[in-house]
Amino acid sequence: MPMSETVTTHSDYPVPETMKAWVLGDPGELTFVDKPVPEPKKAEVLVRIDAVAICATDLEIIHHGPPAMIEGGLPFNKNFTPGHEYMGTVVALGPSVDEYRIGERVTVEIHAGCGQCKRCREGMYTSCHNYGKNYGDVDKGHRANGFTTDGGFCEYQVNHVNTLVHVDDTMSDEEATLVVTAGTAMYGLTELGGLVAGESVVVTGPGPIGLLGAAVAKALGAQPVILTGTRDNRLEIGSKLGADHVINVRNEDAVEKVREYTGGKGADYVVECSGAPNSLNEAAQMLNRGGKICLAAFPGNSPEVDVAYLVRNNIYLFGIRGEGKTATHRAEAFMRQKRFDATLIHTHTFDIAELPEALRYAKDRVEDAIKVVVRNKRAQQQQIAAE
Amino acid sequence: MPMSETVTTHSDYPVPETMKAWVLGDPGELTFVDKPVPEPKKAEVLVRIDAVAICATDLEIIHHGPPAMIEGGLPFNKNFTPGHEYMGTVVALGPSVDEYRIGERVTVEIHAGCGQCKRCREGMYTSCHNYGKNYGDVDKGHRANGFTTDGGFCEYQVNHVNTLVHVDDTMSDEEATLVVTAGTAMYGLTELGGLVAGESVVVTGPGPIGLLGAAVAKALGAQPVILTGTRDNRLEIGSKLGADHVINVRNEDAVEKVREYTGGKGADYVVECSGAPNSLNEAAQMLNRGGKICLAAFPGNSPEVDVAYLVRNNIYLFGIRGEGKTATHRAEAFMRQKRFDATLIHTHTFDIAELPEALRYAKDRVEDAIKVVVRNKRAQQQQIAAE
Amino acid sequence: MPMSETVTTHSDYPVPETMKAWVLGDPGELTFVDKPVPEPKKAEVLVRIDAVAICATDLEIIHHGPPAMIEGGLPFNKNFTPGHEYMGTVVALGPSVDEYRIGERVTVEIHAGCGQCKRCREGMYTSCHNYGKNYGDVDKGHRANGFTTDGGFCEYQVNHVNTLVHVDDTMSDEEATLVVTAGTAMYGLTELGGLVAGESVVVTGPGPIGLLGAAVAKALGAQPVILTGTRDNRLEIGSKLGADHVINVRNEDAVEKVREYTGGKGADYVVECSGAPNSLNEAAQMLNRGGKICLAAFPGNSPEVDVAYLVRNNIYLFGIRGEGKTATHRAEAFMRQKRFDATLIHTHTFDIAELPEALRYAKDRVEDAIKVVVRNKRAQQQQIAAE
Amino acid sequence: MPMSETVTTHSDYPVPETMKAWVLGDPGELTFVDKPVPEPKKAEVLVRIDAVAICATDLEIIHHGPPAMIEGGLPFNKNFTPGHEYMGTVVALGPSVDEYRIGERVTVEIHAGCGQCKRCREGMYTSCHNYGKNYGDVDKGHRANGFTTDGGFCEYQVNHVNTLVHVDDTMSDEEATLVVTAGTAMYGLTELGGLVAGESVVVTGPGPIGLLGAAVAKALGAQPVILTGTRDNRLEIGSKLGADHVINVRNEDAVEKVREYTGGKGADYVVECSGAPNSLNEAAQMLNRGGKICLAAFPGNSPEVDVAYLVRNNIYLFGIRGEGKTATHRAEAFMRQKRFDATLIHTHTFDIAELPEALRYAKDRVEDAIKVVVRNKRAQQQQIAAE
Repeated sequence: MPMSETVTTHSDYPVPETMKAWVLGDPGELTFVDKPVPEPKKAEVLVRIDAVAICATDLEIIHHGPPAMIEGGLPFNKNFTPGHEYMGTVVALGPSVDEYRIGERVTVEIHAGCGQCKRCREGMYTSCHNYGKNYGDVDKGHRANGFTTDGGFCEYQVNHVNTLVHVDDTMSDEEATLVVTAGTAMYGLTELGGLVAGESVVVTGPGPIGLLGAAVAKALGAQPVILTGTRDNRLEIGSKLGADHVINVRNEDAVEKVREYTGGKGADYVVECSGAPNSLNEAAQMLNRGGKICLAAFPGNSPEVDVAYLVRNNIYLFGIRGEGKTATHRAEAFMRQKRFDATLIHTHTFDIAELPEALRYAKDRVEDAIKVVVRNKRAQQQQIAAE
Repeated sequence: MPMSETVTTHSDYPVPETMKAWVLGDPGELTFVDKPVPEPKKAEVLVRIDAVAICATDLEIIHHGPPAMIEGGLPFNKNFTPGHEYMGTVVALGPSVDEYRIGERVTVEIHAGCGQCKRCREGMYTSCHNYGKNYGDVDKGHRANGFTTDGGFCEYQVNHVNTLVHVDDTMSDEEATLVVTAGTAMYGLTELGGLVAGESVVVTGPGPIGLLGAAVAKALGAQPVILTGTRDNRLEIGSKLGADHVINVRNEDAVEKVREYTGGKGADYVVECSGAPNSLNEAAQMLNRGGKICLAAFPGNSPEVDVAYLVRNNIYLFGIRGEGKTATHRAEAFMRQKRFDATLIHTHTFDIAELPEALRYAKDRVEDAIKVVVRNKRAQQQQIAAE
Repeated sequence: MPMSETVTTHSDYPVPETMKAWVLGDPGELTFVDKPVPEPKKAEVLVRIDAVAICATDLEIIHHGPPAMIEGGLPFNKNFTPGHEYMGTVVALGPSVDEYRIGERVTVEIHAGCGQCKRCREGMYTSCHNYGKNYGDVDKGHRANGFTTDGGFCEYQVNHVNTLVHVDDTMSDEEATLVVTAGTAMYGLTELGGLVAGESVVVTGPGPIGLLGAAVAKALGAQPVILTGTRDNRLEIGSKLGADHVINVRNEDAVEKVREYTGGKGADYVVECSGAPNSLNEAAQMLNRGGKICLAAFPGNSPEVDVAYLVRNNIYLFGIRGEGKTATHRAEAFMRQKRFDATLIHTHTFDIAELPEALRYAKDRVEDAIKVVVRNKRAQQQQIAAE
Repeated sequence: MPMSETVTTHSDYPVPETMKAWVLGDPGELTFVDKPVPEPKKAEVLVRIDAVAICATDLEIIHHGPPAMIEGGLPFNKNFTPGHEYMGTVVALGPSVDEYRIGERVTVEIHAGCGQCKRCREGMYTSCHNYGKNYGDVDKGHRANGFTTDGGFCEYQVNHVNTLVHVDDTMSDEEATLVVTAGTAMYGLTELGGLVAGESVVVTGPGPIGLLGAAVAKALGAQPVILTGTRDNRLEIGSKLGADHVINVRNEDAVEKVREYTGGKGADYVVECSGAPNSLNEAAQMLNRGGKICLAAFPGNSPEVDVAYLVRNNIYLFGIRGEGKTATHRAEAFMRQKRFDATLIHTHTFDIAELPEALRYAKDRVEDAIKVVVRNKRAQQQQIAAE
């Protein structure tokens, strides 16, 4: 079915009626099938997907279903297309869109809030009270592509304009897929409150968010920036990205070293990205009185937490799930200005047709994989041919 | 020894050289002895103590020592005078004081920050990084009377002007001792962020802070205000103070009822005042996505906490220990304006000489005691005689 | 034309195809004509208008056109229906609406932001960068009924759900029309920053916003609340609404009296509602160092402003145009809780058919008119007959 | 008179009893005389002054007296030592100081608040309500060296520890004198609210604060950063410091160009550093709706201001006078991290004995002087000799 008349297209970017897409069958089963190209509605655009990075959450979704559905007791979402860290090219505009133009390179953030609930009206759209309501009788227009709505392991996807970030020409497709990861770290630091130039930040856990968290903290002027982890090669990358000190927790007492690196005072902020069972207690111990913890990761079970310590030390704590407060735009600005080299965490590239192999690299950390990116040449080439 | 020349006094309020004061011997041992009247230094005044309320923390301090000392591994503080919820009359001014005048009625907040550390410079003086440094070679001037410096179970005490709150003539001495309790609840709500008119607040635990927490939340315009607890008589007082709904957790599922009373949405804020082992998890379950928890109490051990739930629901959490951000002044304003009747939680009165009996009433909740106040008539009468 | 199938209606509230509406011809010319009943789109409802209050801005719009159009150099908006302070009953739901139900009483705020621009994403929807874009090729969905889209001097109007406030049964239709005025004052105080319990507030100018500004300030716990004006009868109403002190600037020096009433210190906040030429300079003089001014009114020309004084005294200043930050909900909460009696400013009532006479009362302040309300019985009665 | 016993000194840094100091006689009359070395009190240190930058305000003070004194109608302050942008070496510690050690290099911020007033308790110490009260019966301990207390055109000065900033070894004495200028710009941007990565900033007026304002804005990630002025050589320095665009207002319409450089949207922030008569109106015209203006300069008279425009466009405005909120520490962090080269604005150096000639260079912009620094070798050499 071709696009409606209300959708704007351009002959340089012809949009086919069907596309190739990976879809979920039973848990863990992905098949590469033909699917209709979706149509952008009011305030939405159609993005031709040029590259997608794989996130640990994608692996969870593929094997267990999206977290909100598991929590909600919903059935496993068959025929769903996962993938959420993608970038591409705008190829069609839904009604009323003038923020982006056809042919523009964009990368995405995940959450489009409903715009109507208490949280969206406060600007806290990642806490949208209509999370997941994009279907059925009460369609609030909430989208979290790759979580509650179809995502990016395919050739074309619809995005609300609020989830798009312009990509500068100086940035490669692969680098652009990392904006949302940096944006998540930026959001954590934003919500930790205020400018951190000259303040001390600890990042625990050198996964992608942690590594770019160290980079963003340094770009904001934090000093020192301290990164903890268990693998020296990861910590080395952290040093290149901006960490002033790294601590291998297999060899050193992280709390003690943080105290040392902060002149005995303790840190002002901790961004917890490890999800280790005792991470919250250790984060609290690293802080000075009145310090703040952002939880960007969490253990699967319910760890024992020294709540009394939090209260006695006036500690602030909050959990984030992904980016928010337009932090991806701020992250893109820093990346465009070359404040740090996010591509240091991009280790492998595959074609979209090889997604299962790419997922294996990501899951098993084959060849020390950090960020694995899949590229989508077919649609790109078809359109280039059309020009 | 008489006051120095730099101290201003007035003949209507003659200050003796010694006073009666309760002091600690071994844990649990209080004796009523003669002690020198302390002298106010720069920015300090001498307060004649007219009334003191007993707080649960006083009982802890008397039996185990002040929390900061226990944590710091310091020896039990012999000769220390506890008591921190007091009010009285200004009888002498240290150098440079013009904020208060002799004869003025005042009540107190606990914390005088050093004014020099990172937190004090931010206005977060209850998180002072020089907490407890009031003695010895490096006297930063921090005071937390009744915790780290001598408190109010005596006849006279020195207070930094920053810890004083003017008491209006329409307020009794007993009511004035409750300002700091209301101020603690006010601070919790302030730090929860923003005006709460029309937003929903749950207070868990109808102790003094919880009861006045319900009152302050209502005075701020919160709706509904929901109070949970285990004793119906306490909950009834909560209703009189402003709770729109009360939940006896022995009979009802608190999380379920909160959901019901908030139209299925969950609450915007929880002020946790119970210290129950599972209170943090239940507070999280009561909230809507993006909601906030203030911990004003805590369990003694380290409970299991569903950290994943906090992260997945973007929940904000912070611990407070006592008042802050000048919240006592805002609490006094509400009490002066008769927005709620704090005296509903004042149940018993004793003379200062009967402190041990008063402590027994408070500890064992004799006759359903909530707030027990001890009055200090002797010094007051001596000065009246002098006029 | 009947409503589309996607619109939900109910037989108790039959919606006619046409309605009576006042429309503008040449400046100052209003005629009462038949007009189609508009249809609610996604996230919108159809409101049967039961009562409308007249605002000074309505008079400007009728005689000169909406401010944004004048500024934009647009032609006078013929066939436009003005009126923006209305309340009524929900009679039809656009697609996806579940926030309100048919038959529910609601009052309105003016601004529905586009939800997509920088400001809307920050929660500052009254500063929407797509202000006025509700028509034509790029319809961003912004609405400011009575300003950029048709308003309330008619029988039915479409409202975005974000602009609705539930009205409690204890509130009369006339009182409910005043929520948006109180909400504007509430927004000003919110943007002035923080809880004002115990802080001092001056309101200059006892028009409707000023009078309810004094009421809201008092409800928030401000003390003292000082109201200035030129007419004693207005100031008396201000006293009843919560002003602790009133100053008739014809007889007294307002700056001097404010200094006196604040113990020589100057006020913490000024809400400027007079629009007098020197009002900004006087407001600055009333403040203490670091104080804040909210401009809710302004003089027509460019007055001389002592900018040096603002800088030397670290004064914060901001202009608001109407409500924002969901302040109407907070205002409604205070009014529902009977914190102040807004109906004291409602002086006259007319039928919608008598709008020109009602406008004359409002404009010429006939019989000391403050808020003149027009009621709309016809549609109400027709629907009652249908039940 | 030697230092009291409570002051800590070190034999490597012997402190003489008298020093050379420039003092004011009649307006404009400076003489280089002997003066006692002042003694640090509680929470204060004695700084040996190694270098001082000249600020335009110094010229005003020398010719007209400190602004606060002029406003207060006080007599011209004879025997006063001006100078406030200095750095040096700690040579003695008052009682209780452990934040700094003898021999440590430090630079200064101007304002030490009283720590007791409403504003200081909020962390807004530059708006201290006890401004200037450092003498006489009610000594609140407020200091603004070079404004209300003796400043830096001499060999030694006392500073409250709150006004000190550690200077890294990688920073020259001359560069360190510029921290407070960068800190003033940083404070303006901090008070403008939030992280500005990716947001647009205009700085009007390429004086020292304006030039470093462009540098700080860029370091924070703002884009674009636009600088306006009348002299091309200054604008060129601005480009080197981080301005993405410069506008010479003699040749181009600044408002129009700002609109162009921001893609037609207008800027998010304006930092006004020109003090030109129409600067406030132009700043407002440069902004998008909801934008913010920081006034760091002001015209001498009262210009006509289009207040209606501010209100209709929800513009936020505030004036700052110097640094605040510990912004100097954040500025020093950025300078230590070499985010910008502040020394580009340092053009001339003189010996302290040549102060009148240095002042002439600064006042008349001899040889395009921007920042003129005077160095103080004598005391330094005497102490080196003592080692």
